[in-house]
Amino acid sequence: MDMTVGLGLLAGGLTTASFVPQVMKIWKTKSAEDVSLTMFVAFCVGVGLWLAYGVIKKDWAILVANGVTLILGLAILVMKIKYK
Amino acid sequence: MDMTVGLGLLAGGLTTASFVPQVMKIWKTKSAEDVSLTMFVAFCVGVGLWLAYGVIKKDWAILVANGVTLILGLAILVMKIKYK
Repeated sequence: MDMTVGLGLLAGGLTTASFVPQVMKIWKTKSAEDVSLTMFVAFCVGVGLWLAYGVIKKDWAILVANGVTLILGLAILVMKIKYK
Repeated sequence: MDMTVGLGLLAGGLTTASFVPQVMKIWKTKSAEDVSLTMFVAFCVGVGLWLAYGVIKKDWAILVANGVTLILGLAILVMKIKYK
């Protein structure tokens, strides 16, 4: 694995992991009033397209990061709809 | 411009633009209680690393998307700290 892939995985790891505290916060407080529904709808569609981009470019950093991010983004979206 | 670059720019455009309604929402309500501070600190550092990744790979889709996303992420972070 070259250094660039390592940097991409670190970048992807951080941006992806950053959604975990947001998932936990909404899960604990059962409140998502300040979270934008429009943001997470557009975000999840966009991350889905990044996944396709990663597939075409065979870029593992983009693939792995966006696969996990999509799961976390959908979790926030579902909780936003549920808890408002 | 080939189709893959177009897909990357569309993906980046959507994930980047998705932060605009979140910026607007906090700006209007002056409230960011449900937004996770930890998320946006980790997210901004990660997006900064994606920028470096884009520079090394000379990947314009990653560069442009993450440049704008960093500005929006920092705006949310500053408002989160200001409005709590």
